[in-house]
Amino acid sequence: MRVAIDALGGDRAPDQVVKGALASARADEATELVLVGPESVVRKAIETHGGVPPNVSLLDAPEVVAMDEGAASSLRTKPRSSIAVGIDLLAGHEADAFVSAGNTGAVAAAAFLKLKRLKGVKRPGIAVPLKAVFNVCLGMEMGANIQCKPEHLYQYGVMASVFAHHLLGVERPRVGLINIGEEENKGTRLVQEAYRLLKRSHLNFIGNIEGKDIFAGACDVFVCDGFVGNVILKTAEGLMMAALQKFRDQAERDEKAREGFKLLRPVFDFFMNMSDYSEYGGAPLLGTEGAVIICHGRSDAKAIENAVREAKSFVQRGVNAAMSDALARGGEVS
Amino acid sequence: MRVAIDALGGDRAPDQVVKGALASARADEATELVLVGPESVVRKAIETHGGVPPNVSLLDAPEVVAMDEGAASSLRTKPRSSIAVGIDLLAGHEADAFVSAGNTGAVAAAAFLKLKRLKGVKRPGIAVPLKAVFNVCLGMEMGANIQCKPEHLYQYGVMASVFAHHLLGVERPRVGLINIGEEENKGTRLVQEAYRLLKRSHLNFIGNIEGKDIFAGACDVFVCDGFVGNVILKTAEGLMMAALQKFRDQAERDEKAREGFKLLRPVFDFFMNMSDYSEYGGAPLLGTEGAVIICHGRSDAKAIENAVREAKSFVQRGVNAAMSDALARGGEVS
Repeated sequence: MRVAIDALGGDRAPDQVVKGALASARADEATELVLVGPESVVRKAIETHGGVPPNVSLLDAPEVVAMDEGAASSLRTKPRSSIAVGIDLLAGHEADAFVSAGNTGAVAAAAFLKLKRLKGVKRPGIAVPLKAVFNVCLGMEMGANIQCKPEHLYQYGVMASVFAHHLLGVERPRVGLINIGEEENKGTRLVQEAYRLLKRSHLNFIGNIEGKDIFAGACDVFVCDGFVGNVILKTAEGLMMAALQKFRDQAERDEKAREGFKLLRPVFDFFMNMSDYSEYGGAPLLGTEGAVIICHGRSDAKAIENAVREAKSFVQRGVNAAMSDALARGGEVS
Repeated sequence: MRVAIDALGGDRAPDQVVKGALASARADEATELVLVGPESVVRKAIETHGGVPPNVSLLDAPEVVAMDEGAASSLRTKPRSSIAVGIDLLAGHEADAFVSAGNTGAVAAAAFLKLKRLKGVKRPGIAVPLKAVFNVCLGMEMGANIQCKPEHLYQYGVMASVFAHHLLGVERPRVGLINIGEEENKGTRLVQEAYRLLKRSHLNFIGNIEGKDIFAGACDVFVCDGFVGNVILKTAEGLMMAALQKFRDQAERDEKAREGFKLLRPVFDFFMNMSDYSEYGGAPLLGTEGAVIICHGRSDAKAIENAVREAKSFVQRGVNAAMSDALARGGEVS
């Protein structure tokens, strides 16, 4: 197995990315890792972390896509970026998986453009494992496909269920469709039609859910178009950050409240890391050949290690084949 | 001025609604209030709260729309519900405002069907004042118009700005457009085109915002289609409820954490009431003749009093005329 890693992706690259990659390489010598990025920069980072293990190679990619750069234009103007070169390795079957903490839009755009879709898949998308307070809930789609058709939503239910089954350990994932009410006939034509497709499938479809149900542990997978999914993610992240700020402000004003803040610290820590899915690895791009794992921009070495582990499990457990099978069998996940 | 009140609307009706209405009536004898609902039921509730003041009258509406009843079907099957009869009063110019804590969908459907649109308005909608942690942020649209056109979004920006200016006391409301990134060309065709309309208007348009910006105090008004708005509202509400549950669970397991919970109580109380906009009155339906204020289903007497006060201000300050003027002047709010 060969896993390519975007050595220049993320706010803490190359240092933390290289550190995590080297730890992964040393822990499992049977897996080859390819560090993709500007060679001199990557080599320097490797040296500060103890040199190159035998199962690590370097692949030069002199261009760097900035975290806030336009996705489509970065592909045109920087064909030799670490993202483009990494995805090219997958396309040429020279690597099985690609891990990047870089520009999410650029990774998705490169993958959509260069990688073959899996058999039966209409549109690939990004799934994000959300720490939904009481459980982990896999949301799909989260921003790469904002003009969805009903069949896309249905397929996201299937692909996310297969992923949750094989990689999050959920036996029979409960799938909810994000809507503005529980009744079958609620919502836009898009969700009404998606409801019908999901209902007549073999998925464990629990029906329409609302934003609030995500955090009540009602489902293991939630399905929505990428615009709505992105809004859910950002709203939850922003609300929690603002809420914690409010608690901190109060704690600073008042001795007793400061004491309270200290005593509830573990719960605050949980919430501060709520939108950080790095302990599960990263957010998988589902529906293309190969395994593409997108990590949080602020990933540290540990997060990169987790993502590499996830990428390997993804390949070893044959998640792509299982997704195609499930699509061919009307959503029967196994 | 005459304000009609849905005496049977809400989880705590008729008791709390009638109590709030009577308090409003006694505090301002120049305003006439009309309590709409099944007469014997309403009369009985009035008696337990000290009898009928001279400026309160009753209007019989024998049918009751349940909180979870389908909006459209309730209009067909219950033409004499408190909601239908109350909106009829506005339509016949027999009342200036209607306050209801009943079924939101039914109130909006009745208003859309029976009330004339204001001059220049393409589609009315519901605006919700959200306690966005550090400020109050008025979101529009929040669930009544889920198939928006770009011009609807632009008009929501105008109408919500006028409301925020006249009733929330914001001098020059900052308007943000909910999108999946800051750049002008982001998002669906709907939001791209709405961006252009908002940008070339006289509104104080600050550009695209993401879900997280709402809670960072970035804007006073946010604009989105009703599907997205509803999802934002429900996600925020559900996340906060789940988060508080997590804090409570921790507090029960651990003596020190319990102490901490007690010491931070005021901040917890703030969040428990975050989705409760009753202290500002209710959620206005904007774009139709008359003033329609929708209260939270769990409104108590105090919330009803606040909503009646808001309804009166809405009429006295000429918000409807100001909205039509602002639309005619390309979003110039005054």
